[in-house]
Amino acid sequence: MFRNQYDGDVVTWSPQGRIHQIEYAMEAVKQGSACVGVKNQTHAVIVALKRSPSELSSFQQKVFELDQHACMGIAGLSSDARSLARFLREQCFEFRWAYDEDMPLSRLVNAVGDKMQRCTQLWSRRPFGVGLLVAGYDAKGPHIYQIEPSANFFDCKSMAIGARSQSARTYLERNVEQIKSSDREGLIKHALLALRECLPSESSLTQQNTTIAIVGQNETVTINDDDKVQGYIAQLDDDGTAGQAMDDSSAQGE
Amino acid sequence: MFRNQYDGDVVTWSPQGRIHQIEYAMEAVKQGSACVGVKNQTHAVIVALKRSPSELSSFQQKVFELDQHACMGIAGLSSDARSLARFLREQCFEFRWAYDEDMPLSRLVNAVGDKMQRCTQLWSRRPFGVGLLVAGYDAKGPHIYQIEPSANFFDCKSMAIGARSQSARTYLERNVEQIKSSDREGLIKHALLALRECLPSESSLTQQNTTIAIVGQNETVTINDDDKVQGYIAQLDDDGTAGQAMDDSSAQGE
Amino acid sequence: MFRNQYDGDVVTWSPQGRIHQIEYAMEAVKQGSACVGVKNQTHAVIVALKRSPSELSSFQQKVFELDQHACMGIAGLSSDARSLARFLREQCFEFRWAYDEDMPLSRLVNAVGDKMQRCTQLWSRRPFGVGLLVAGYDAKGPHIYQIEPSANFFDCKSMAIGARSQSARTYLERNVEQIKSSDREGLIKHALLALRECLPSESSLTQQNTTIAIVGQNETVTINDDDKVQGYIAQLDDDGTAGQAMDDSSAQGE
Amino acid sequence: MFRNQYDGDVVTWSPQGRIHQIEYAMEAVKQGSACVGVKNQTHAVIVALKRSPSELSSFQQKVFELDQHACMGIAGLSSDARSLARFLREQCFEFRWAYDEDMPLSRLVNAVGDKMQRCTQLWSRRPFGVGLLVAGYDAKGPHIYQIEPSANFFDCKSMAIGARSQSARTYLERNVEQIKSSDREGLIKHALLALRECLPSESSLTQQNTTIAIVGQNETVTINDDDKVQGYIAQLDDDGTAGQAMDDSSAQGE
Amino acid sequence: MFRNQYDGDVVTWSPQGRIHQIEYAMEAVKQGSACVGVKNQTHAVIVALKRSPSELSSFQQKVFELDQHACMGIAGLSSDARSLARFLREQCFEFRWAYDEDMPLSRLVNAVGDKMQRCTQLWSRRPFGVGLLVAGYDAKGPHIYQIEPSANFFDCKSMAIGARSQSARTYLERNVEQIKSSDREGLIKHALLALRECLPSESSLTQQNTTIAIVGQNETVTINDDDKVQGYIAQLDDDGTAGQAMDDSSAQGE
Amino acid sequence: MFRNQYDGDVVTWSPQGRIHQIEYAMEAVKQGSACVGVKNQTHAVIVALKRSPSELSSFQQKVFELDQHACMGIAGLSSDARSLARFLREQCFEFRWAYDEDMPLSRLVNAVGDKMQRCTQLWSRRPFGVGLLVAGYDAKGPHIYQIEPSANFFDCKSMAIGARSQSARTYLERNVEQIKSSDREGLIKHALLALRECLPSESSLTQQNTTIAIVGQNETVTINDDDKVQGYIAQLDDDGTAGQAMDDSSAQGE
Amino acid sequence: MFRNQYDGDVVTWSPQGRIHQIEYAMEAVKQGSACVGVKNQTHAVIVALKRSPSELSSFQQKVFELDQHACMGIAGLSSDARSLARFLREQCFEFRWAYDEDMPLSRLVNAVGDKMQRCTQLWSRRPFGVGLLVAGYDAKGPHIYQIEPSANFFDCKSMAIGARSQSARTYLERNVEQIKSSDREGLIKHALLALRECLPSESSLTQQNTTIAIVGQNETVTINDDDKVQGYIAQLDDDGTAGQAMDDSSAQGE
Repeated sequence: MFRNQYDGDVVTWSPQGRIHQIEYAMEAVKQGSACVGVKNQTHAVIVALKRSPSELSSFQQKVFELDQHACMGIAGLSSDARSLARFLREQCFEFRWAYDEDMPLSRLVNAVGDKMQRCTQLWSRRPFGVGLLVAGYDAKGPHIYQIEPSANFFDCKSMAIGARSQSARTYLERNVEQIKSSDREGLIKHALLALRECLPSESSLTQQNTTIAIVGQNETVTINDDDKVQGYIAQLDDDGTAGQAMDDSSAQGE
Repeated sequence: MFRNQYDGDVVTWSPQGRIHQIEYAMEAVKQGSACVGVKNQTHAVIVALKRSPSELSSFQQKVFELDQHACMGIAGLSSDARSLARFLREQCFEFRWAYDEDMPLSRLVNAVGDKMQRCTQLWSRRPFGVGLLVAGYDAKGPHIYQIEPSANFFDCKSMAIGARSQSARTYLERNVEQIKSSDREGLIKHALLALRECLPSESSLTQQNTTIAIVGQNETVTINDDDKVQGYIAQLDDDGTAGQAMDDSSAQGE
Repeated sequence: MFRNQYDGDVVTWSPQGRIHQIEYAMEAVKQGSACVGVKNQTHAVIVALKRSPSELSSFQQKVFELDQHACMGIAGLSSDARSLARFLREQCFEFRWAYDEDMPLSRLVNAVGDKMQRCTQLWSRRPFGVGLLVAGYDAKGPHIYQIEPSANFFDCKSMAIGARSQSARTYLERNVEQIKSSDREGLIKHALLALRECLPSESSLTQQNTTIAIVGQNETVTINDDDKVQGYIAQLDDDGTAGQAMDDSSAQGE
Repeated sequence: MFRNQYDGDVVTWSPQGRIHQIEYAMEAVKQGSACVGVKNQTHAVIVALKRSPSELSSFQQKVFELDQHACMGIAGLSSDARSLARFLREQCFEFRWAYDEDMPLSRLVNAVGDKMQRCTQLWSRRPFGVGLLVAGYDAKGPHIYQIEPSANFFDCKSMAIGARSQSARTYLERNVEQIKSSDREGLIKHALLALRECLPSESSLTQQNTTIAIVGQNETVTINDDDKVQGYIAQLDDDGTAGQAMDDSSAQGE
Repeated sequence: MFRNQYDGDVVTWSPQGRIHQIEYAMEAVKQGSACVGVKNQTHAVIVALKRSPSELSSFQQKVFELDQHACMGIAGLSSDARSLARFLREQCFEFRWAYDEDMPLSRLVNAVGDKMQRCTQLWSRRPFGVGLLVAGYDAKGPHIYQIEPSANFFDCKSMAIGARSQSARTYLERNVEQIKSSDREGLIKHALLALRECLPSESSLTQQNTTIAIVGQNETVTINDDDKVQGYIAQLDDDGTAGQAMDDSSAQGE
Repeated sequence: MFRNQYDGDVVTWSPQGRIHQIEYAMEAVKQGSACVGVKNQTHAVIVALKRSPSELSSFQQKVFELDQHACMGIAGLSSDARSLARFLREQCFEFRWAYDEDMPLSRLVNAVGDKMQRCTQLWSRRPFGVGLLVAGYDAKGPHIYQIEPSANFFDCKSMAIGARSQSARTYLERNVEQIKSSDREGLIKHALLALRECLPSESSLTQQNTTIAIVGQNETVTINDDDKVQGYIAQLDDDGTAGQAMDDSSAQGE
Repeated sequence: MFRNQYDGDVVTWSPQGRIHQIEYAMEAVKQGSACVGVKNQTHAVIVALKRSPSELSSFQQKVFELDQHACMGIAGLSSDARSLARFLREQCFEFRWAYDEDMPLSRLVNAVGDKMQRCTQLWSRRPFGVGLLVAGYDAKGPHIYQIEPSANFFDCKSMAIGARSQSARTYLERNVEQIKSSDREGLIKHALLALRECLPSESSLTQQNTTIAIVGQNETVTINDDDKVQGYIAQLDDDGTAGQAMDDSSAQGE
């Protein structure tokens, strides 16, 4: 096994100026099931693949409501995600209590970044092992933010994280303009098509393994599971052939 | 013995993005005696195998009452379980004191998940070494929640944890629909049949080694040991032949 | 010497899901001199072997009064035991101050279990190295509780802990029914016969090395040493032949 | 790999009187994308290269507004930079609240130096992994300050930090006098010409990858991205040939 | 040198259930100069050998007054002893302040045992390296208590600790009855005869190297050094021949 | 590389009674650029060589004003120096606030010595890596104090610290009497001549690399850089030949 | 180099019951320059050899005034000594403030012993590396106390500590009676003769390297350096031949 002598804790720099423990925490994101976020002029959408540890359990929660105007998709350690979701909800709640309005998303994302940064500089803690996609709508319109275990975050046009998410990012890159100009229903469709790229072979999107969250102008956060998802997936299959073809080509490129 | 150099504490990530200490704590659950939870439309039931360190001791407590509407079955370190049970009881008590009603189970489970998550991110603590099945009834009906040492939790139709619980899960999966539509007595019977799958060979369910806990609509938590259990087990033996047959086949499958 | 790499502290799980430091602390109990607890319908009795570091010292205190209705026998590190005894006395005192009645024993035992559990999960402490037998009488009748360094505890019919206690447990198991139905004097006799099983060869119970503690219905805790013990031991020798015979056979079984 | 036995933490001196961990943290700056700061008699300008982790993300924020009279360019760990930016903003805010005027830059830089110094002397923390260029205008005119992970800082005529910044420093050294006497537009041009030296081969400055921040006499901080940048870059290409030639020669010298 | 891998700190159990660091601290007592405590029906006496690091220094203080009714002889680390003496004096003072009477000795000894126990269970401390003999007189008569670095303590008829103290213990054991029934002067004589057993060969008790402390019924603590000691030693030599003979025989027995 | 096993932290004594980490911190002073302090009957002067990390940066600050009557030259880690300067300024400020007069220098130096001593005895900190020359004038006249990373300090007639400072000390020793009896201008000249001894070969004192600080009777601290320094250096070259000759001879002696 | 595995920190006992780190700290005293303390019926005197790191520095302070009736000579780490001196001054000041009289010396020495003991039992600190000789005069007459890094202290007739102090102790032992009965001037002479024994060969006592501190009945502490010392040293040379002869003989004995 690869090992150097500077990768045992988060307060030790390697001679090359790297903190290996932060990089290792990034790997945890790649092991989570995929999550895709997209936005157009009016809406932001998060879709995510849910895994189920057994037929008996519910599928894991992959999208968390944060406030009426923001939600969060995740890939990585669910328990770390839940801890951060609680923090973010408290931030939103306190902002609303103080100012009686939606917390601006950039401010919200800054707050969680600060919290995550501290865990990358304190000996007694470890970096959070989860990647976040925060979707929301505020005075500046819809947003998709990606937040990494390193506490870095990015304002994105669209983004995909988690296992096999490279294919989804390829899809998103190829369809940047179409996504941007799509309507609400088209936006969801693009999100699902991108998510489908992340499926293991011989799997497909189902109402069980897919979550669709939508937030937008004059529309508070809705997280759809089960039946509500079914309609969107069915629609996808009707005209999803183009997406499927793209799937094949991108599979070679990965 | 297998060993890598990143598995000594809970604040160290492996280069593959794993926290081995959390995974090792999961093993402690597999060493506890089995515990099964099931629910139908109106009730949730926990049944558990009790071990006794000697003929002189009482059998270990495997099911803990949390409040009038919730109880918890466990597999793993009893002392860790007791510590968590105390925490959960306090949560329920404080909620009832503040709102004068039953604490919603999802909220209760979130609270214990938060507590357990902190122990997976602090250098000076270790993850709890116990798996929990929380059963209860609230405004949304009956619930079975599974909580792992990783602080992950799942809303389940039914679940089995602990030693040899794979066989029980197989039973539960095969009988999902029957369990869902069973009546109160049938629910208990299914739970016991699943639990019987977890017995070591040449053992059987007895009034000494079995606990049955029931909670449901208009029915506060009852935890039955000894004589009260006897009736249910006897009934099982009367018509348990089908279950027994299933036992054999599933034994091959394990 | 056997050693693996996961047994150096209490916050490290082994890959098999064990915490070796807790198991090692259990060994300390086996090195303490024996202690036996029994109960019938009305009384609970603790008898213990006292060791003396020299002829000049008093024998070590093996039974601690906790309150008028509870006492505690120990095997293992005396100083740890004393620390726990102080804690338990404070619990009883505070309960009595608050409610003006005897603290229920299950509640008392839960309190000490919580305290001991914390020492199994904190890096900077070690598990207590002492096993406890708490005897008492409360509204639910007489009780014998066993508490281990792991913070596990058990409600027992009777129990023996400490060096060579397996022989005593064998005696207790063979005489479960007689003990249960014995009168106060018979109960003490059974306790002493069980304790005698734990003696090293060529030793015998004497008024110097034996403590007898009794608590029961309408009888507050009495801890008897020296002369008061002599009578019980003498009585034992008068008709102890049956016990002696049993001794021999069980010696083979050990 | 090179390793000595004194480079594992920040509280250990090597026998040669060095703290290797501070030196390693300095390496993190060299891995960040370049950032250039220049000033003339009236203005200070920061220009920086932005990297984007993917086409889908916004480019990383490289320049942070601190107050109306000060901003900060960075090279190194973005999350560490953000944490320091927050601290600096609070300093400015509190100063303005107390004195109702701009915080003098030397005082501001001292404050962040103190904060960073503490992380070089405490065992449980690590040095910040980011280099800062603080640009601002106060009663003493325009300033460019460089702050290193070692907590050292320097009042600079101009400065470049980050990957391939040596070429930019060479440009700046050769043009010290011209920069000093340039007007506002010329100052920006020199900054961009210096920054162009830091580009990887076959890359060029674009409105996407370049940020231009300006602050000066009677001019509060403006951070320009995208379209506003385009004009400056276009202007550069018109007459930038001399700079390009210099590029070639300095490339050999690096 | 013998070494196992579980003896480096006080919070690590060995697989055999031992805490080696506590045992090592016990060795420190054996390196201190001897100290003997005896009691009869009315008095308790501590005699101790004082060492002097040079002819220029006073001899080390070996007996500490704790209160008017209690004193303490020590063997081991003097500075640890002094720290404990201060603690014990404060205990006595506070008790007297609160209740206006002598602190019962058992209670006093319990208090110091608690303090010492904590140092055997906390990672950041070490066990005290000193053995104590507390002598005193309270409502229950005269007492000699022995307290070990393990925090164990014993109520003793008489006791000797420190270097070569085994010979003294042998003397004390052989003369248990005579000591018990001796008068005040005889008690001191027995103490000195026992202490003489601990002398290195060719040394003798002198007024310089011997301390005699007495406390008893109607007699507050007196600690005698120098001239006051001389009388007792002279008396010893007059009729000490029997003691000397005993010395020889016991020397063979050691 | 030389290494023993007792030099890893500041709380470990070597068997020879040394604390190697303190000694290693002393090495950091030798790597700083030189600093010279001299005094006569009425004035104290600090001169220092400034290094510049690049042509673009200001030279490093080497002399810090502490109060109107005291300043400090440094050699070693600048960031540590700045942290100590802040502490010393606060001391002076608080003293002035409380007593409305200059803080006596011996008291000031004691305060910083205390602060630095604590860092040599605490595990979680490291010794400061900087040597200080504090110059000032108080009721007892002018002073030069040297303070080492070990927290030792010395009242000096004159002193030189930093790289190649041995030559300067040789100069100062040879001219002790002349310096003592010099006037203000002569004192500065001697300081500069001593400082010149510390220059690397082929370097010379310039207005860029030299700082001159003066404080004295009826003269508050003045720190001269640039133009103000030029006059003094020019004067030096006029008649500095004797000093130059001395330079050569001492170079051989080093 | 000698090394065992139990000498790395102060909270680890060796199997032989020793704390090596305390012993190593004792070595630091032997590396300090010598310090001698003597007393007669009315006065106590401390004389000490001062070292100077260079001709330019003052000699190190070796004797510290603590209060008007007490002073302290030291050998070992000066910065540790200064930290303790500050503590002792505060003790004296607080006592005087509370009781309006001189703090008894035994009480003062106990206080510093307590402080030093704590550093021998806490993991995060190290033992102080300095030996102290406290001289003073209180209601019980003059005193010389020796305090070691182990926190042990001794009431002494006279004492010498530091490098080559064995010769001085030999002188003091041979002249115990003469010193005791000497007058004030004779006492100082004896102290200096003893101190002369500690000189390296070819060195001699001078007014530069010698400090003489005197305190006594009706005489507050005076610490003499320079000129005041000269008279005493001159007197010594007049009639010091006997002392010199003794010097030779004792040199052979060392």
